[in-house]
Amino acid sequence: MSLRDFLSPEERRKFLETEKKIDLSSLKSDLEKNSSVHCENLIGAVSVPLGIAGPLTVNKTKIYIPLATTEGALVASVSRGAKAISQSGGAKVKTFYHGQTRGPVFLTHEIEKGLLMKSWIESNNPAIKKAASDTSKHIVYLGAKVKTIGQYTFVRFSFDTKNAMGMNMVTIATEAIARLIETKTKIPCIAVAGNFDIDKKPSWLNVIEGRGYEVWAEAVISKKILNEVLHAHASDIYKTWVAKCMVGSFASGSLGFNAHFANITAGIFIATGQDPAHVSESSMGITTCEERKDDLFVSINIPSLQIGTVGGGTVLPSQKNSFEIMGITPKTSPSFFAECIGGAVLAGELSLLASLTTRTLGSAHEELGRKKK
Amino acid sequence: MSLRDFLSPEERRKFLETEKKIDLSSLKSDLEKNSSVHCENLIGAVSVPLGIAGPLTVNKTKIYIPLATTEGALVASVSRGAKAISQSGGAKVKTFYHGQTRGPVFLTHEIEKGLLMKSWIESNNPAIKKAASDTSKHIVYLGAKVKTIGQYTFVRFSFDTKNAMGMNMVTIATEAIARLIETKTKIPCIAVAGNFDIDKKPSWLNVIEGRGYEVWAEAVISKKILNEVLHAHASDIYKTWVAKCMVGSFASGSLGFNAHFANITAGIFIATGQDPAHVSESSMGITTCEERKDDLFVSINIPSLQIGTVGGGTVLPSQKNSFEIMGITPKTSPSFFAECIGGAVLAGELSLLASLTTRTLGSAHEELGRKKK
Amino acid sequence: MSLRDFLSPEERRKFLETEKKIDLSSLKSDLEKNSSVHCENLIGAVSVPLGIAGPLTVNKTKIYIPLATTEGALVASVSRGAKAISQSGGAKVKTFYHGQTRGPVFLTHEIEKGLLMKSWIESNNPAIKKAASDTSKHIVYLGAKVKTIGQYTFVRFSFDTKNAMGMNMVTIATEAIARLIETKTKIPCIAVAGNFDIDKKPSWLNVIEGRGYEVWAEAVISKKILNEVLHAHASDIYKTWVAKCMVGSFASGSLGFNAHFANITAGIFIATGQDPAHVSESSMGITTCEERKDDLFVSINIPSLQIGTVGGGTVLPSQKNSFEIMGITPKTSPSFFAECIGGAVLAGELSLLASLTTRTLGSAHEELGRKKK
Amino acid sequence: MSLRDFLSPEERRKFLETEKKIDLSSLKSDLEKNSSVHCENLIGAVSVPLGIAGPLTVNKTKIYIPLATTEGALVASVSRGAKAISQSGGAKVKTFYHGQTRGPVFLTHEIEKGLLMKSWIESNNPAIKKAASDTSKHIVYLGAKVKTIGQYTFVRFSFDTKNAMGMNMVTIATEAIARLIETKTKIPCIAVAGNFDIDKKPSWLNVIEGRGYEVWAEAVISKKILNEVLHAHASDIYKTWVAKCMVGSFASGSLGFNAHFANITAGIFIATGQDPAHVSESSMGITTCEERKDDLFVSINIPSLQIGTVGGGTVLPSQKNSFEIMGITPKTSPSFFAECIGGAVLAGELSLLASLTTRTLGSAHEELGRKKK
Repeated sequence: MSLRDFLSPEERRKFLETEKKIDLSSLKSDLEKNSSVHCENLIGAVSVPLGIAGPLTVNKTKIYIPLATTEGALVASVSRGAKAISQSGGAKVKTFYHGQTRGPVFLTHEIEKGLLMKSWIESNNPAIKKAASDTSKHIVYLGAKVKTIGQYTFVRFSFDTKNAMGMNMVTIATEAIARLIETKTKIPCIAVAGNFDIDKKPSWLNVIEGRGYEVWAEAVISKKILNEVLHAHASDIYKTWVAKCMVGSFASGSLGFNAHFANITAGIFIATGQDPAHVSESSMGITTCEERKDDLFVSINIPSLQIGTVGGGTVLPSQKNSFEIMGITPKTSPSFFAECIGGAVLAGELSLLASLTTRTLGSAHEELGRKKK
Repeated sequence: MSLRDFLSPEERRKFLETEKKIDLSSLKSDLEKNSSVHCENLIGAVSVPLGIAGPLTVNKTKIYIPLATTEGALVASVSRGAKAISQSGGAKVKTFYHGQTRGPVFLTHEIEKGLLMKSWIESNNPAIKKAASDTSKHIVYLGAKVKTIGQYTFVRFSFDTKNAMGMNMVTIATEAIARLIETKTKIPCIAVAGNFDIDKKPSWLNVIEGRGYEVWAEAVISKKILNEVLHAHASDIYKTWVAKCMVGSFASGSLGFNAHFANITAGIFIATGQDPAHVSESSMGITTCEERKDDLFVSINIPSLQIGTVGGGTVLPSQKNSFEIMGITPKTSPSFFAECIGGAVLAGELSLLASLTTRTLGSAHEELGRKKK
Repeated sequence: MSLRDFLSPEERRKFLETEKKIDLSSLKSDLEKNSSVHCENLIGAVSVPLGIAGPLTVNKTKIYIPLATTEGALVASVSRGAKAISQSGGAKVKTFYHGQTRGPVFLTHEIEKGLLMKSWIESNNPAIKKAASDTSKHIVYLGAKVKTIGQYTFVRFSFDTKNAMGMNMVTIATEAIARLIETKTKIPCIAVAGNFDIDKKPSWLNVIEGRGYEVWAEAVISKKILNEVLHAHASDIYKTWVAKCMVGSFASGSLGFNAHFANITAGIFIATGQDPAHVSESSMGITTCEERKDDLFVSINIPSLQIGTVGGGTVLPSQKNSFEIMGITPKTSPSFFAECIGGAVLAGELSLLASLTTRTLGSAHEELGRKKK
Repeated sequence: MSLRDFLSPEERRKFLETEKKIDLSSLKSDLEKNSSVHCENLIGAVSVPLGIAGPLTVNKTKIYIPLATTEGALVASVSRGAKAISQSGGAKVKTFYHGQTRGPVFLTHEIEKGLLMKSWIESNNPAIKKAASDTSKHIVYLGAKVKTIGQYTFVRFSFDTKNAMGMNMVTIATEAIARLIETKTKIPCIAVAGNFDIDKKPSWLNVIEGRGYEVWAEAVISKKILNEVLHAHASDIYKTWVAKCMVGSFASGSLGFNAHFANITAGIFIATGQDPAHVSESSMGITTCEERKDDLFVSINIPSLQIGTVGGGTVLPSQKNSFEIMGITPKTSPSFFAECIGGAVLAGELSLLASLTTRTLGSAHEELGRKKK
């Protein structure tokens, strides 16, 4: 008898409670009755503590940042960075939408045919665009990057998926495009997702080309605020940055030349119903610092942020609430959401780099990891 | 007035409800009264749907896999892979514990002094071990890898943190070791975390050396089961694997030579209260395939899996329930948990590679992304 | 007294012969009188043995491949591969010229200004093109890729440098462009070469985007020829390729998913007066194989090959001779030269992969590393 | 009729002169009569101009650096750096010999067997050592690093090859070890070289673990010398270093966080008969800078330098001369040679970084690329 044979989460819980002799009542959740939940073999829900960091001024707007986390000190740390940044006039954040990508691989069999396929794609933009649009009114084809390697040709199709992160949308559109290509060129598609997208894996391609939203954030923190809020000096933070984020990241062969992007993106992703597998991509990127006399310039760049304000888990009640705390509704462009993330990540970087210079990392975690909220 | 001035999650919700004119009642949660929650500025909790994949036979044990996810089709896909694997005798899974690492960076000022520091560390193992043990009875010092670059010396200390993932523990122990080194050698520590750990970022160091748990899983799926359960052929899956996971991953400059490790690790991490920022590391690794006549050998290797069965979010009620579904309590070694993850990731890889060959990726997501659970 | 104070190579040799009590007569060379030699403190010349591999049929043309090398077995191995390929109808080779790049870095100070700089560059193509053309009639500006990171903006300018490899040319042109940008935008250039070029270093950017010439070569070798010429089977070569060039290269975190590109490119580069520092870039790239029944498809892709048929060491007598052996003069397009290199690299890969399957690598080197030519 | 049918270089030249209607007299060389030449189908020799950079003080010893190059300005630039370093007391250089590696791949078929193989290797050190020693009295087995991935097990055997670079030696020894393993464990070796060595390709493995010789060099250049010799300021060089070698190298996904290591290593490698394919590995590594008041600390680290003072091209007359200029004979340990290379690379880095700040890169090349030596 399989879990799929049961009709309800409750029945599944009962089945496992009996089989395993356990009590699963903590999983019981209102989500069981929610028709927006897309999760097979639903058995209930997991509750993740939600803390609010901030306020943080981002592009002159004051925001609060919801972080779903069980790591003591994370919310406090981002709040501390947010305070320093806000007192300094706030984070300046910029975003660029590279579009969402899907990267099928075709069996072009020989190099010449692969290069011809590239020409075919470049010459058939309207047909490709139409094939994509026919699958959804929400999708707009943006372009393609083509790479032939031996018997294979990889194509990285980019789409504007509006307010959705859009992976499902681009899969369906790319399947339609692949069928078009197969029909017109007789070249078979091996797989609609050939890792040239490249989705949910760290990669230099996404660092170099960008994917989804690229975000930049920066702030200049004065000597006075560094001292009062972070108890740190610009020169110490700068030195730590060079040693850790530059030389140390090289020593590790990393794609993350930063302090801890992933902590903040993971917290916001879970809070707002993003796909948490994309934490793998949003942990890539670089933090830069510069001493400006006794002040500190600090910036972050996340080249590959996959986010949406509609679709996926964004429709669920508590996730909606998290969005509302940031002032985001399904009608809000993800670019504003990206700005909020950029600002929050900047705050997290500043605070951690500062606490490394004052040697309070361990004690902060010790204290906050044990005390009540 | 700051959020920290409020005494309770309820007050914080009220404050934001008033300020933002929103209704945050979906965040209300029993976790507010739970003294094990470590999250500053707590405002409630986010509910993430939990589905159960499996059963899956892992090293002859039948397990169920809890996946917290809002991605339709994920649970179904892992279940499908689990079915094929279990009917084939189950996944053979092996693990190796590399230990948890913390990597401080020291200002050795000149190369010679950096190389001397390496000697010092190698000659003072007992003192270092004692400094670590003095911070916690749960930690055992395992060793160090030292790398001098110019004025800097990076050290990657490894520890056995027992059933805990242990990042806080190793931070505190490393701070003590750093103080010992500073006292004895007069060499200043720039930062206790110098990115040679390297924590929560994709990196070749962790792929090559391993970190936390390394996991391998494998199965041989017969022609018959491939056909009946996955509607696929070994040769097609194999071809897709070469094109996508090998050549495609190279084309993208990726550290993930796999199909979608991150989907499964993220789902299990959230379900069981692991640190979701570590999805960045667990998305690295490689899947291999081999045609064995008409059967298919498939394997996965995750070199850097950061997990624990105690600490962090593992103490929370619903997360505990997820663990219980796998038969895991705080007394269970994380190596068994790693085996479960390895088996689940193997199931996910097999199923996705198969569905790419049968071109059902888009339709499965379309269908399961819209239908009720 | 310094070496620069001497007027001739002979005087320099005498000075060092006296100081070091050595006899440097082996360095004496006709090159000392050659006005095309650009090498400060010239003291003579080094003689590197030159062997000829081939003949090899490349795109229906029969070529001989000059390899300057002291590695016994290399010429024999490439010749063996060339024989197998030529008997199979020859290598099909394609090339694409991405242009030569120079990548200055500008201090844009803040992100917004960096993004504006990108717009400025995109809007001022004619002025940039003119600034470049004014420095040399041989150079044509092709375009720019711009990346802002914090206070910095990196620009990767591409140029057509005709038959020259062109690094000096693009440096001078880029200095002129940088002056134009500084004058017009008041943004200072930190360095004309900011490693976004990226020159003479292995990098994913050049693998992904291509630089200089990209080359693809392929051949299908029949079972009969595999057996007669290489004493090997398609299935064995294929298995070795998967294990070594795919999985093994991943295990090493390499950018070279090949067997030994560098051996062949280094040999040809020295023979023909190319810049041997570019071996670092031409060692990147991928070999692919496919069993086609009992035949073997084999291909190579070198994404970043920096070559010229004029300039640099190409003007020297023996280097000219090497070119003539390939049928290349200063008027020959480097694309033909790239085809020759592509074919030769393919031959080298095929032969080494085959010899690994027959376990003759050690013995071949042992024998040929000791016997006379 | 094939080139191999001819008995002498002269006959080969005649054959090609007739077939191609060219005059190959510039290839004629005394090397044709030299029994130490190992190059099949020898047709003569290529002459590469040799310049002498220096003097440079390295660890208190004054050396001259032979650079075989056709790049105008390279010798002058290294000399300039050497002058500044020597006037500052010279380069402090350290080396570490990691040993030479060969990395066979075995078909262990299943993970468990792969992990058992690791145990077998660890338990059979004496037998492995003996198998290696039996192939040559010059080789000493040092150890092994083992990595199992699915059906494959990769082993990276390390050896001390004394004064030889030793690739042939380690191939032969590893073939013997592989036979031992096959006999004792019945596990077949797929290829003696499975890219876990990893030889002649850029790779993070060799950066992280080191291979052959690892070299560090450093110097502190005073404000006065910076000004007088390099016409540059510490702060400008430092800023250029951060922008170019750190942030710029990240932006390119590079393994070379340096300015131009490859130029110097290529020049010395060709001058001294090293294997020029290893330029691919020696272009990896990192330069670091630090402002010390108005002085500049500068350092380099090359983790993977493959060199020898015997074997390969080191036996040829002009290459011997190059060695003698450095005071190196076949009895000299390669560690001294590595120190010379480290010092020379440091000089090259310093000089290029300085010239980037004074914007003389283009003009220096323009001038020196055209003027006589």
